[in-house]
Amino acid sequence: MEDSMNRNSSNMRREGANGNVDGRHSAVSTDDELLDIRTGALEHWHDSDEEETSKNLNSSSSNLMDTLDDLPPGIGQYEDFHTIDWLRDIARDRMRHRHIIKNKQDGIWEKVKSAHDAWSGWVCVLLVGVAAGLCAGIIDIGATWMSDLKEGICAEAFWLNREQCCWSVSKVDIDDEYCLQWKTWSEMFGGSRSGAGSYVVTYFLYMVWAILFALLAALFVRVFAPYACGSGIPEIKTILSGFIIRGYLGKWTLLTKSVGMMLAVSAGLSLGKEGPFVHVASCCGNIFSYLFPKYGTNEAKKREILSAASAAGVSVAFGAPIGGVLFSLEEVSYYFPLKTLWRSFFCALAAAFVLRSINPFGNDHLVMFYVEYNEPWYIQELIPFVLIGVLGGLYGSFFIKANIAWCRYRKNSRLGNYPIIEVLVVTFVTALLSYPNQYTRLNTSELIKMLVGRCGPEDDTDLCDYKRNYSSHQMNETYLKSMTSSTVIGDGVYKALWMLALALVFKGIITIFTFGIKIPSGLFIPSMAVGAIMGRMIGIGVEQIVVANHDNPFFENMCESKQFCRITPGLYAMVGAAAALGGVTRMTVSLVVIMFELTGGLQYIVPLMVASMTSKWVGDALGKEGIYDAHIQLNGYPYLDSKEEFTHTTLASDVMRPRCARYGSAVRNDPPLSVITQDSMTVEEVEHVMKSTSHNGFPVIVSRESQYLVGFVLRRDLNLAISNALKLQDGIVYNSIVYFTNHVTENPNDPAPLKLRKIIDMAPVTITDQTPMEMVVEMFRKLGLRQTLVTHKGRLLGILTKKDVLRHIAHLENQDPESILFN
Amino acid sequence: MEDSMNRNSSNMRREGANGNVDGRHSAVSTDDELLDIRTGALEHWHDSDEEETSKNLNSSSSNLMDTLDDLPPGIGQYEDFHTIDWLRDIARDRMRHRHIIKNKQDGIWEKVKSAHDAWSGWVCVLLVGVAAGLCAGIIDIGATWMSDLKEGICAEAFWLNREQCCWSVSKVDIDDEYCLQWKTWSEMFGGSRSGAGSYVVTYFLYMVWAILFALLAALFVRVFAPYACGSGIPEIKTILSGFIIRGYLGKWTLLTKSVGMMLAVSAGLSLGKEGPFVHVASCCGNIFSYLFPKYGTNEAKKREILSAASAAGVSVAFGAPIGGVLFSLEEVSYYFPLKTLWRSFFCALAAAFVLRSINPFGNDHLVMFYVEYNEPWYIQELIPFVLIGVLGGLYGSFFIKANIAWCRYRKNSRLGNYPIIEVLVVTFVTALLSYPNQYTRLNTSELIKMLVGRCGPEDDTDLCDYKRNYSSHQMNETYLKSMTSSTVIGDGVYKALWMLALALVFKGIITIFTFGIKIPSGLFIPSMAVGAIMGRMIGIGVEQIVVANHDNPFFENMCESKQFCRITPGLYAMVGAAAALGGVTRMTVSLVVIMFELTGGLQYIVPLMVASMTSKWVGDALGKEGIYDAHIQLNGYPYLDSKEEFTHTTLASDVMRPRCARYGSAVRNDPPLSVITQDSMTVEEVEHVMKSTSHNGFPVIVSRESQYLVGFVLRRDLNLAISNALKLQDGIVYNSIVYFTNHVTENPNDPAPLKLRKIIDMAPVTITDQTPMEMVVEMFRKLGLRQTLVTHKGRLLGILTKKDVLRHIAHLENQDPESILFN
Repeated sequence: MEDSMNRNSSNMRREGANGNVDGRHSAVSTDDELLDIRTGALEHWHDSDEEETSKNLNSSSSNLMDTLDDLPPGIGQYEDFHTIDWLRDIARDRMRHRHIIKNKQDGIWEKVKSAHDAWSGWVCVLLVGVAAGLCAGIIDIGATWMSDLKEGICAEAFWLNREQCCWSVSKVDIDDEYCLQWKTWSEMFGGSRSGAGSYVVTYFLYMVWAILFALLAALFVRVFAPYACGSGIPEIKTILSGFIIRGYLGKWTLLTKSVGMMLAVSAGLSLGKEGPFVHVASCCGNIFSYLFPKYGTNEAKKREILSAASAAGVSVAFGAPIGGVLFSLEEVSYYFPLKTLWRSFFCALAAAFVLRSINPFGNDHLVMFYVEYNEPWYIQELIPFVLIGVLGGLYGSFFIKANIAWCRYRKNSRLGNYPIIEVLVVTFVTALLSYPNQYTRLNTSELIKMLVGRCGPEDDTDLCDYKRNYSSHQMNETYLKSMTSSTVIGDGVYKALWMLALALVFKGIITIFTFGIKIPSGLFIPSMAVGAIMGRMIGIGVEQIVVANHDNPFFENMCESKQFCRITPGLYAMVGAAAALGGVTRMTVSLVVIMFELTGGLQYIVPLMVASMTSKWVGDALGKEGIYDAHIQLNGYPYLDSKEEFTHTTLASDVMRPRCARYGSAVRNDPPLSVITQDSMTVEEVEHVMKSTSHNGFPVIVSRESQYLVGFVLRRDLNLAISNALKLQDGIVYNSIVYFTNHVTENPNDPAPLKLRKIIDMAPVTITDQTPMEMVVEMFRKLGLRQTLVTHKGRLLGILTKKDVLRHIAHLENQDPESILFN
Repeated sequence: MEDSMNRNSSNMRREGANGNVDGRHSAVSTDDELLDIRTGALEHWHDSDEEETSKNLNSSSSNLMDTLDDLPPGIGQYEDFHTIDWLRDIARDRMRHRHIIKNKQDGIWEKVKSAHDAWSGWVCVLLVGVAAGLCAGIIDIGATWMSDLKEGICAEAFWLNREQCCWSVSKVDIDDEYCLQWKTWSEMFGGSRSGAGSYVVTYFLYMVWAILFALLAALFVRVFAPYACGSGIPEIKTILSGFIIRGYLGKWTLLTKSVGMMLAVSAGLSLGKEGPFVHVASCCGNIFSYLFPKYGTNEAKKREILSAASAAGVSVAFGAPIGGVLFSLEEVSYYFPLKTLWRSFFCALAAAFVLRSINPFGNDHLVMFYVEYNEPWYIQELIPFVLIGVLGGLYGSFFIKANIAWCRYRKNSRLGNYPIIEVLVVTFVTALLSYPNQYTRLNTSELIKMLVGRCGPEDDTDLCDYKRNYSSHQMNETYLKSMTSSTVIGDGVYKALWMLALALVFKGIITIFTFGIKIPSGLFIPSMAVGAIMGRMIGIGVEQIVVANHDNPFFENMCESKQFCRITPGLYAMVGAAAALGGVTRMTVSLVVIMFELTGGLQYIVPLMVASMTSKWVGDALGKEGIYDAHIQLNGYPYLDSKEEFTHTTLASDVMRPRCARYGSAVRNDPPLSVITQDSMTVEEVEHVMKSTSHNGFPVIVSRESQYLVGFVLRRDLNLAISNALKLQDGIVYNSIVYFTNHVTENPNDPAPLKLRKIIDMAPVTITDQTPMEMVVEMFRKLGLRQTLVTHKGRLLGILTKKDVLRHIAHLENQDPESILFN
């Protein structure tokens, strides 16, 4: 570290040559350099004081920036669980950018470097996209294989999943539900394919496998990366809003999450791999950003890559690149400049393209639930769609409240100490209850695919058991029409409805207990499944009402004849899935776009929109927060929501610390503001100030008597500068005066002064004490502030940090301000 | 106005009762109230000074807000061609919102009002969407009818366009190119349908109609609404960024633009109606916003509606609701909170839905260029797609440069004085040259539809003249396959290629002169047409190369046999349209989404993306600005682009006025900063300060000797307050001292003091002189500032307005700073 810091030398050397007239310090200037630990950006702002015209503005002090290429470690980094300072990071990046632009003339190599810099963002998102696509492909393939392993194995080639197994050997057996090459476990153990004994064996092995998978997933998470549990979206939202959680997006998390996700999905738990895909993609984003110092060493810039990565995550999760970008924009990202929009789109497309080339589902469609139908919908159907939206909103609210209550109980009770036991219990219950019901035994995404589908001529499932008055040999046009139109239902459908109702209750409840256990678990697919079941049931109901009342004028345009009514229960399932997902996550535009990319149904955009809007309104009426925001709050992350408006009438002076000193009111145990004066404190006094408080930074003022603000200095910088100076700089003792000014009055009798002007930020953001908090919140959100200084008629009154703002908001909303844990 | 102002009385009365110990002023307090012209918001901020605890923060001073329901006219309004103050407007709205929330308990009626307020945003965008859809439907129908009028008329029912005319009478004649009911003009005048004489008559009448339509359009614009000319998008961008152009979105503009657009499109000029649709929709947005005082009286809130309206505009222009939202987000809007995203989507959907119900194109598809094919594309084809992208980017740059040069010439020469002559000349040239070529004679959007289409079995146009070795009776599968696959081209295609080349040159050049003449004119369709022609030509070229080299391993996977190569020239046309449009407008994500909604081709998203990205990169390398930004700059609007990064190293002290007084440098003719002291200037002195400068506001400082900032007062408010006080308030004379403080030292010998504390903004945004300009620009963009005050150690140094920032940017980019015309 010292070595890299020495490269800052040219900078201080110049100051040494200009500033020190007696030359005494010229010998120590190389030590002096160690003080120069602030970023080049702030550096430069001060230096340009002396510039007079704007003509030479662009040619100033090029030597200052020689050191920017490889910043010393530690600079621009933050402590774990701390908020980042967007303004400072972005300023640093602009500085670096200017440096490169200026050097461009200096030869071919610099030109190459400049081009590399200009393209590095695109290259990085391309790599991230490709990596996200690859990860998703591997996980999809692995999860499919392992899911099938629960029921049987490919006798001749165990590495093939059921579909591949049946395809690989011969094409004849596909029509058969079980092809001969695919052996169920009861067959493998010498039993028969059907019968009570076989059922018990298969059931038992299904449960054994499920528990084994879940145990492995939980152990992996426990041992390798505790951060790999859950969906990861709440944490990624917090990280993107400018927060540091070290290791959350590291390579161990990536590996553990990938493997754990395959295991968790295969265990048949009520969870999806779509949310975790966002986490996996973000891990890829984080890892690749270190290849490009522009992003790796700058937390604010890194978040641009992470935004793009989360778009890629949704893109591969659903095969929905546009939906992914909108999800990143609407739900996840905080700081989203337009450049990021383009890069996110590029990244999402690259990821989708790679995944499509891998083709894990083997259906040549990028999307999972591609609907092949193109049936019209009727304006009257908006009534059931609104109803579905209302139910989706209600379910969403119920789910959020129940899940948060359960998570809070887990956190505060002894249950939290036994995460692996909890996983095993949940898995046991899930496996036990889901095997007997064919709809819950199915892989959840296959269930959704089945529900949103249409009953075609070849379907002979219970769900498609309609009474069609045609013999199966009569394969003419009328027959086909009858197969795709609605008619009176048969007994199979009644049975299916009962099973679906059971599946609905089961899925709805078990998901509450599943989301939050210590294995990777997403929420999209289970929510959509609940909605799709609900939607399909309502759809069948509406269908039967219309068929029964086909001569009612209200339904007339929907029915061609007595038996041919054009109602598509699959569409209701699709709408239901959107409504439930909307109720849980409170997404709107991105949800609709994902749904329509998912199903390829551009014509169903109005029903989807109606249901998701209704669902959001109903949900919001019952509780403002979506599930991710609720989890952010549960964990006490400092997330300043950019969606909710601050509607209270408090002023900055009500929130700042120390509180309202000006009004002489009770001091409420607030210690006085810790400040540093610009030219009258000794090293010892400064160290005392630092030791007596835990603030991350200190305002610098003119003097105790005239408290006008000069600048702001970070604790980290001050600490490093003083300890380095004491160690390495001649003449600096505890009695040395610390100067934050250019003009140092040197007295030969006094110890050598410690000049720290370089480390102070001369442009801190300030507000007046009369500023309404709504404006302060706006400034924190939009400028990404970490703190702001409060003044009154130029005099420093107090300081206001992001944590203060969040605690104030929590207080006003009658929540516990102490729930905000981090700075 | 006075009447409505009197309602502010309760507020001042309270102050009168508390503050004036001698009671002398209690009689004049009703006059005093006239001073209270600041918004309630600022009002309240001051009053809450006295509040001590945060407990009663929400119950403070409800009587202050009684006046908020109907604000006095003039408040919250701005002068024409001035920048708005987002912060102030948003604060005003929050205040109004809080007021309504608080009153909610006061009975049913207040509850209804509160509900109305909560829903008014949604209701407003719904109305805007419906209105935009209706306008678009009417314009589409009118334009189609009038376009057909150029060539002939429906003999039996003149109000029908050609398609309707032929459909209405009998279904038999449709196959015929001209049905019998549709008479060409030469037939109407007794001539024959074909032959040289008929050609001359039709040609002549085509030109007469074209010139007539253009003349009418130009006259309408001249007489009724000069603002109706052009596409309107540059101005809407400027307005949305926070600028006032009165009447730009008024009802006259709406009417004139609608009618003018029909006429201009019918005149056969090389222009589109898609850009103007955005203007029309924005007019609807503006007009409907006046129905809801929440939006009508608040410029910042109104822009939320306008953002949604512009999304609706694109939605109806292309039948692309998602693309519309993204267009609004990426290209047009400035301040785009998430709530606006949802509302925009809702608005865009409503508009698309209404337009679909009107069904002006009669094809049941929402989209204009619906492609029915689903052919694959091959990875090798990315090479020609990149080439198309490069050409699109080059064309875009060339077009922007040429068009701006021509517009600048028009502005600075005598040409600008004869707008109608110019329109007529352009129309004459266009009509003269476009009639002979069948591709230019076509309506431009029909041309694009034809170009992006595929040669089906029934097509016998020149463009589809392929040598197919099957007799027309051999309608078997192989034949159909051959019709949809590529093969060797016939003479017709060669002829078509020549005609297309001519059309390309003609369209490419005439559009430069057309965009900017004084009639409504959009740019989307002509740009897309140029790109589509180019793309189709390249596509045919690639097709023939592949067919000729079908045994080359590089092309092998594209060809099934010698004659069946699966290349779709229509796809190239689509990609070309995207590339050219991308080059001209520099849109990316929204462009791709619009194109894919336009064509319904989700599978072509990668080719579209590749071409539009390449096009943007090439275009950006040749000149950063898109056509809209270039026009904004040409007109000198104060638009602070949120896309371009500020990369210079200047400081606030280099830009503020007066410049760098602190450094004692040459004063450069800068007058000293006009300030007002808080408690030592007389009315006369204040009036002198106001008269001697033209600034929009003045900083208030403690005193001449101690220049610490107290607040900021707007010229408008100060003027109104002083003149009202002089007129109506007893004892106020020119010698009265103006007080901006709470504590007034009253001396019986002095004239009555004028207390103006109510009108000063105690929370102006301040920065230090050392703040780098990049941060200042960021603050102006993100917070929507109008000005900021510059301080140094608490002391006021200068002021920095949006105009200063823009001039500074222009200066640094070697442009004329004087080109920024407005405040």
